[in-house]
Amino acid sequence: MAQQVLNVTVPAMAEGSYPIVIGSDFLQSLWPEIERQWPQRRAFVVTDANLVRAGLLDRLLAGTDVPRYVIDPPGEVSKHIHTASAIVEAMERAFLGRDTLLVALGGGTVGDMGGFAAAIYKRGVPVVQIPTTTVAQADSSIGGKTGVDSTLSKNAYGCFWHPAAVYIDTETLRTLDERQYCAGLVESVKHAAIADAAFFGYLEDHIDAILARDTDVLEHLAYENCRIKAAVVAEDPTEKNKRRILNYGHTLGHAVESASGFALLHGQAVAIGMIAAGHLEQAMGLVGDDRLERICRLLEKLGQPTRIPPGISKATLIDLLKRDKKAVRQWPRFVLLEQLGRTWCKDNQWAHEVRPDLVEAVIDRMTAS
Amino acid sequence: MAQQVLNVTVPAMAEGSYPIVIGSDFLQSLWPEIERQWPQRRAFVVTDANLVRAGLLDRLLAGTDVPRYVIDPPGEVSKHIHTASAIVEAMERAFLGRDTLLVALGGGTVGDMGGFAAAIYKRGVPVVQIPTTTVAQADSSIGGKTGVDSTLSKNAYGCFWHPAAVYIDTETLRTLDERQYCAGLVESVKHAAIADAAFFGYLEDHIDAILARDTDVLEHLAYENCRIKAAVVAEDPTEKNKRRILNYGHTLGHAVESASGFALLHGQAVAIGMIAAGHLEQAMGLVGDDRLERICRLLEKLGQPTRIPPGISKATLIDLLKRDKKAVRQWPRFVLLEQLGRTWCKDNQWAHEVRPDLVEAVIDRMTAS
Repeated sequence: MAQQVLNVTVPAMAEGSYPIVIGSDFLQSLWPEIERQWPQRRAFVVTDANLVRAGLLDRLLAGTDVPRYVIDPPGEVSKHIHTASAIVEAMERAFLGRDTLLVALGGGTVGDMGGFAAAIYKRGVPVVQIPTTTVAQADSSIGGKTGVDSTLSKNAYGCFWHPAAVYIDTETLRTLDERQYCAGLVESVKHAAIADAAFFGYLEDHIDAILARDTDVLEHLAYENCRIKAAVVAEDPTEKNKRRILNYGHTLGHAVESASGFALLHGQAVAIGMIAAGHLEQAMGLVGDDRLERICRLLEKLGQPTRIPPGISKATLIDLLKRDKKAVRQWPRFVLLEQLGRTWCKDNQWAHEVRPDLVEAVIDRMTAS
Repeated sequence: MAQQVLNVTVPAMAEGSYPIVIGSDFLQSLWPEIERQWPQRRAFVVTDANLVRAGLLDRLLAGTDVPRYVIDPPGEVSKHIHTASAIVEAMERAFLGRDTLLVALGGGTVGDMGGFAAAIYKRGVPVVQIPTTTVAQADSSIGGKTGVDSTLSKNAYGCFWHPAAVYIDTETLRTLDERQYCAGLVESVKHAAIADAAFFGYLEDHIDAILARDTDVLEHLAYENCRIKAAVVAEDPTEKNKRRILNYGHTLGHAVESASGFALLHGQAVAIGMIAAGHLEQAMGLVGDDRLERICRLLEKLGQPTRIPPGISKATLIDLLKRDKKAVRQWPRFVLLEQLGRTWCKDNQWAHEVRPDLVEAVIDRMTAS
C-alpha cells in the first residue's frame, strides 16, 4: 500500500492547500485514517447504488454505523438540484451541524452532489472526495468545481468548493464496466493534449496495459492527471483565465452530451469535442503537426466516438452552444491547441472567439454520414 | 446626495474588499452608476412584491428593461430553497451566463435569496446588495452570510458570499411600516451594546429623531452600524471565532422567533434574546453597571417586547435550543456582555457555555405573567 501524495495549493482557501493521496488497495483501511484526521467532526457519506452493489461502501465503512445518502438511480440523471435537497434533508434528519464532514465515495455525480451539498449546508462544511471512476480520479474530484443540473440545463447550479482531501485508490477502477472505464480515460488524453506531450506519448506507448488495467500504469496515470490538473488549479483556482484550458473539448462536448439526452457518456462527448477543436484549429490556421491524427487514433483505440452521432441536429447544438454557461453575448469561447501539449494563448486569453460559421462547418463535417 | 463610503476588507475574498456606499435619496440615480461599475456584466434584479408596490423597483430601474424575479409573497415565508430554484430558473430563461450581475433590492429575505442564488448560480456570480429595511441596512446586507430554509428547518442552506458592493439609501426606510422599522433598529442596539458604548448613548439621546426618521440621524445610524459590523467581519469573515459576537441576543432570539411561528419579527425576537442575555450575565456574576436597565429602557422606547410572549412553552424553547445550528453536543453557546459596549471573552472564546438550569430559570423569569 505504497501511497504518493500531491499537495494542491489554493491561494483563496483559508487552509491554503489540500492533499491528494494516490495508491492502490487501501480503501478498506481508509476510514480509521479519516477519523484520525478529523476527530472533531461527525461524518456523513454520500455514495450511489452502484457503489453499494459493488461492495465498495462496505469496504470503506467495514460495518461502521455512519449516516449516509445513497444516490439512486446512479449517474447523471440524479445530478439534479432535487438530489442536493434530498442530501441536505438527510443530513438535517441525522441532526448534523456545522461540525459535519461529508465524505463522497463514487464517480463524477457523487463527487458533484457531495461537494455541492457540502458547499451549501449551513454555510459550508468540509468534503473528502474518494473518487472511484477514471473520470473522477483524473478530473472531477480535484479542483473544487461542483455542478448540478436544473430542470432546464446542465450545471446551472454549482459552487467552487475545494475538498479537504482526495483519496484515490486505483483498485476501485476494477469495478467499472469497459464503457465507463474507457470514457473516463478521455480526460487523461485531454490533460496530455493540453499540457504534456511526453505524457501523451506515454499513453500511446502503454495503451495495452491501460486497457488491461495494470496496477502500476493506473497509479502512474492517476499521478500524472493530478499533477497536471493541480498545477492548473493552483494557478487559477476559480477559473478567471488560464484554468479555462481544462475546458478543451468541453464546449461542443457539453452540447453533444446534452443533445444526446445523456446517451453519450461525458468522456465520449468530450472525445467528439476534442476532434471538433482539432478541425477548428485547422480552419483557423493553427496547424503544423500531426496532432489531430494522433489524438483521433488514441481516442479510437480507447473505443471513443470521433463523429457526432446521427439524430443530433445542428440547430439543437447551436441552441445549446448559445446557452453555454461560459457564453459571452450568447456565444461560447473555445480552447484550442497550438501544438500537442500546449494550448493556444492570445492576448493573455486561453479561450477564444470562433466565428459561428466555422463552428457550423465543423458540425456539418463531423455529422455527415 | 452626499455619500459616505466604507470599505470592508475580506482577506478570503479574491477581490480583497468591497465598498458600502451610504447616503439618502440616491436610488433613482443608482442604476447608471451600477452600469458604469460593471460594464461587462448583464444585470438581473431580485426584489419582492412589497418593493414593487412601494415604487422602489421603478425608482431604481426608471423604465430600464432588466430581467427580474419578484419574490411573492414577500418575507420569511419565501426564504425557502424553492424560491432559490425559481430565481435560478428565471436567470436561465433570460439566457444569463456567468457574466451576470445579480442586484438584490429589498430587505433581509431578498438579500438572503439574492445572495444565495448568486453564490450557487453557475459556480457563483457577483451580487450587489441594495438593502431597504432597517434590519438589512444595519446587518444582513453586510458580511456575506446567506441563509435559506429547508422544509425541515431555518437556514439549513447557506453560503458565505460577500457582496461586490452595498448601496444604502436611507430614504427607502420611509416606505416601512412602524413595526418593521422599529424591529430592525434592534440590530443597531445590538451593535452598540457589543461594541460601542458611545453609540449606545447616541441612540438614547436621539431616540425621538430616530422614531421620526430624521435623515441625518438615519445616515449616521447606517454609518455606525456598517462601521461596527465591517470591523468584526474583516477580522473573522467566516465566523471561526470573534464574529460570533454578532450573535449576541440571537441564541434565545432564534428559538423564540421560531417558536412564535414567525409571528414575532426577527428584531423583536432578538430584543427578547438580549434581555435574556442580560439576566444570564447577572446569574453568572457578570455585573457592575446598569446596562440591563438601559438596554431594556431603550428597547421599550422602540416598542420592542422584553418578555417571552404567552403561548410559548419552555419545553419548546429548550428543544429548539438543542437544535441550534451552532450547538455543540446539542447545547448552544451564548454571547454575553462584560460591560456596555464590550462582549465577554474568556480563554479566547466569545461564545460561552451556560448551564441549562440557568437558561431554564431565565426563561421562567421572562415568561411568568
